[in-house]
Amino acid sequence: MPEQKDRLIDAARGLVKADAVFSNAELFNPFTCEWERGSFAITDGVVVGVGKYRGLTEHDMGGARIIPGLIDAHVHIESSLLTPKEYARLVSLRGTTTVIADPHEIANVAGIDGIEFMLRDAKGLPVDIFYMLPSCVPATPLDQGGAVLSAKDLRPFIGHPRVLGIGEVMNVPGVLVHDHQLMEKIALSRVVDGHAPLLSGSDLNAYVLAGMQSDHECTRIDEAAEKLRRGMYIFLRQGSTEHNISDLAGIVNACTAPRCCFATDDCHADMLANAGHIDNCIRVAVESGIELECALRMATLSAAERFGLSDRGALAPGRLADFCVLSGSKIFTVKTAYKRGVEQRGIPGKPPLWEPHPFLCSAPAPDTIRLDGRGRARVIGIVPHQIITEPLIVNIDTREIPDIARDILKVVVCNRYRDRSCGVGLVHGFGLVRGAIASSISHDAHNIVAVGTGDDEILRAIDTVIKTRGAMVVVDGQEKTTLTLGCAGLMSLLPYEEVVSQQETLKSAVSRLGAVADPFMYLSFLALTVIPNLRITDRGVFDVGQFADVPLFLK
Amino acid sequence: MPEQKDRLIDAARGLVKADAVFSNAELFNPFTCEWERGSFAITDGVVVGVGKYRGLTEHDMGGARIIPGLIDAHVHIESSLLTPKEYARLVSLRGTTTVIADPHEIANVAGIDGIEFMLRDAKGLPVDIFYMLPSCVPATPLDQGGAVLSAKDLRPFIGHPRVLGIGEVMNVPGVLVHDHQLMEKIALSRVVDGHAPLLSGSDLNAYVLAGMQSDHECTRIDEAAEKLRRGMYIFLRQGSTEHNISDLAGIVNACTAPRCCFATDDCHADMLANAGHIDNCIRVAVESGIELECALRMATLSAAERFGLSDRGALAPGRLADFCVLSGSKIFTVKTAYKRGVEQRGIPGKPPLWEPHPFLCSAPAPDTIRLDGRGRARVIGIVPHQIITEPLIVNIDTREIPDIARDILKVVVCNRYRDRSCGVGLVHGFGLVRGAIASSISHDAHNIVAVGTGDDEILRAIDTVIKTRGAMVVVDGQEKTTLTLGCAGLMSLLPYEEVVSQQETLKSAVSRLGAVADPFMYLSFLALTVIPNLRITDRGVFDVGQFADVPLFLK
Repeated sequence: MPEQKDRLIDAARGLVKADAVFSNAELFNPFTCEWERGSFAITDGVVVGVGKYRGLTEHDMGGARIIPGLIDAHVHIESSLLTPKEYARLVSLRGTTTVIADPHEIANVAGIDGIEFMLRDAKGLPVDIFYMLPSCVPATPLDQGGAVLSAKDLRPFIGHPRVLGIGEVMNVPGVLVHDHQLMEKIALSRVVDGHAPLLSGSDLNAYVLAGMQSDHECTRIDEAAEKLRRGMYIFLRQGSTEHNISDLAGIVNACTAPRCCFATDDCHADMLANAGHIDNCIRVAVESGIELECALRMATLSAAERFGLSDRGALAPGRLADFCVLSGSKIFTVKTAYKRGVEQRGIPGKPPLWEPHPFLCSAPAPDTIRLDGRGRARVIGIVPHQIITEPLIVNIDTREIPDIARDILKVVVCNRYRDRSCGVGLVHGFGLVRGAIASSISHDAHNIVAVGTGDDEILRAIDTVIKTRGAMVVVDGQEKTTLTLGCAGLMSLLPYEEVVSQQETLKSAVSRLGAVADPFMYLSFLALTVIPNLRITDRGVFDVGQFADVPLFLK
Repeated sequence: MPEQKDRLIDAARGLVKADAVFSNAELFNPFTCEWERGSFAITDGVVVGVGKYRGLTEHDMGGARIIPGLIDAHVHIESSLLTPKEYARLVSLRGTTTVIADPHEIANVAGIDGIEFMLRDAKGLPVDIFYMLPSCVPATPLDQGGAVLSAKDLRPFIGHPRVLGIGEVMNVPGVLVHDHQLMEKIALSRVVDGHAPLLSGSDLNAYVLAGMQSDHECTRIDEAAEKLRRGMYIFLRQGSTEHNISDLAGIVNACTAPRCCFATDDCHADMLANAGHIDNCIRVAVESGIELECALRMATLSAAERFGLSDRGALAPGRLADFCVLSGSKIFTVKTAYKRGVEQRGIPGKPPLWEPHPFLCSAPAPDTIRLDGRGRARVIGIVPHQIITEPLIVNIDTREIPDIARDILKVVVCNRYRDRSCGVGLVHGFGLVRGAIASSISHDAHNIVAVGTGDDEILRAIDTVIKTRGAMVVVDGQEKTTLTLGCAGLMSLLPYEEVVSQQETLKSAVSRLGAVADPFMYLSFLALTVIPNLRITDRGVFDVGQFADVPLFLK
């Protein structure tokens, strides 16, 4: 729009008044990591200049600190349980103005339709949602989800103004054997995100060489340092279960901050509402010893640069007027957030338009989830605050399951895309002393997954998930608590306030069962066959190291 | 080439031997600004991995320091007097492996043909030469050079693998009034270099907003700091006449190094051969107080990132095996340079293919350069080590010219693109006590410019420039010293060794005339109508302040 540019240039030169001027502020400058005392002017939602200006409206900021809008470098919006519209409404209040999302979850359930819904629902929001195209649908060739997306399927999205590249390439074995279908997807874009937990040495070299430019899966500082040195952008993650920032803080300094960003990956609505979003990452970073200025650069310019978004990431001429006014508190707190110069108030919009997706299965018959046998069994051990699992070998007699004393319970996965495909295994660490829980959120195929103390309650929980076309369910005797996930069995169609409130109810219900904190989060990763070590699928127990189905009992 | 990628991945994994392994080295890592003890392996000219590898050849580096190949962020190759091929041969020995060049000079002479020659001559060299498209041909609408390039003329080059964006937008007034033809050129690419000496405040804001992302014209630290804060990349320049690094060193630190690069802009062959190229910039930077590691990041990864060249700038998997082995000396010295894994030896190639460009003028008749009159005259005063000129008003009787005592000499500009277009003026500061000098390098139109003590010698010097189809010429009585610039009157077609030697001869010849040091440099800027104050064109005296032709004598 040449006319708009003319108007902006004239405003920048001070020949005409700007729309608004914000004066008397301490401005964070991510190019120099300094605070600059001064003013800035905006027109048409764009910063036209820093310095003295006259505006149609003029705001004296009383010396408040102002920083550029915050950017999440990698998130699955689906994991918030909210649709993009509600997600944006919530995080916009936290100072987030841009997120780079990977619609990997809904694409695994609903394929292209899912990606198109996410693009449609992201229009006109107070947060710019960009997408990376899901590269691994299904996550591995062994997984059977709701869709298979090839390079041919993804290509039409390349060039879409909201699409920035190829999302986390989690099929590391596929890369290492240069699987040609996967390599074709990687070749679609110059921007490709990686996903390679604990990958190191020559295999890491090969993975980076093959084109993966970032990693958000680091859990150890030596791991992050090695990946950084090999040229990867490191996204330090703070999600609902993945709390990696404090462990990785040591890699961040003035020199490396440009190659580091923050990501939340998977973050439930309640955490976003209570702890915060990228603002929370900054608080955790500072608590962990990262200098505030380095953390702010990571959360703004570094993320913008990583994705080639030269129109944001700083309060500088020509960039979007996305910014946060901080409170005077010593602890980093966003008081007010502005998107394209407009103060955010979290006003609800219209409900999303989603065509309900059927579940193509019925509740399994009781005998299909029965276990028989004894001996040394493979038990999936959940690890607190991690999504990796511990491969336990335990002497088991299935007649003694549930083994409440040793906290060994039954776990069931039912394929939701076809009938009568059910896998059964054992899990340690959920802490349930009665009842069962089930969910239609189960990375990455999003089959139905359930853990419980009794077959009957497990089956009733699964049945409820199917009947509601997706839900998180707690069964406690005859009582049932449900958080319906009407959008693809992944997201609620309700406003975020209601979702957060339902989460609270669900939380009380699971804690009455004696469960660990956040059992649904652990539940949702039990079937994820790309993260070590033991997993459960609709075929049974899966060993990620061997990358193969394995029997429950050792030979 | 999928098969090549397969081979590289296998080599990275160590499944097959790499082509070569360099072990026992101190590797500079620009991602972390650390030195890393170790080894790396290359195959097909690409780094496949860092760490332990087996190779078809294995090189023990004896603990030597190795850094990634050096990058010049902004240069006019023409100013070296060398064609791209010879330029590359020379700077490759200095550790340069990539340059971003702006063929602004040859485009002003030969338009599209000139750009195409530069692209053609850049093929298969030991230095990757990328081009920014010249944005200001001619420099201003008043200038009459050999070409006028519009957005329509430049568009076909967009997308060429060697073209990265739009070169230095020096027509700052044009930007500020949003000249639409200029804005159309700026809109051609997402990568646009700026050129805005001393621009500041709201006009700088407007210039940045309009799309200019870098500046290599900073001469003052406050100027550089302001531009950096507004989001510009700062290219610290060390050219034959422009020595800016020491004045700007204070802006560089670990935080800002990713937004700073080195540039040589205009650098003669003799300086490249004697002082060096980007290696010299690093030495000057370190002498000026910049930490070596910051300087190295600037010269490698920062420049690569600024231009989106993610295939280079670091010794990391998948990036080009461009690197330098340093000498053990305390002073930064490149001992050996490697391009795509091949050690550089500066072996001469075939001479360039240039279709000689005719000079469409004949030597002016004696009476056309005669001056008549007396009174208060406008005299162009050259300023030592600057390209600005001082506007002098001096009482003159033209019969007393040359006025050796007051050092006032005749200056003549002849249009080379059409016959009988000659301007005559007076100049102070060249110091010639006899003879004349002439040159076909005369920014930006590159007409013929001459200064001398007598009309006869001036005319012979001009005649020689025309007959040789471009040259720098010194006439001293009957003696003539010529450095022929057979390529567009800007570059020599000879190997660099001969050009450097001819430069030495020319230097002796001018010093025998009593001239100031580097008179050809001052000569080449006398006609540059975009830099204050008085200039000379083929129309006569030009006042940059009034932006108009003015008579020699004041009324």
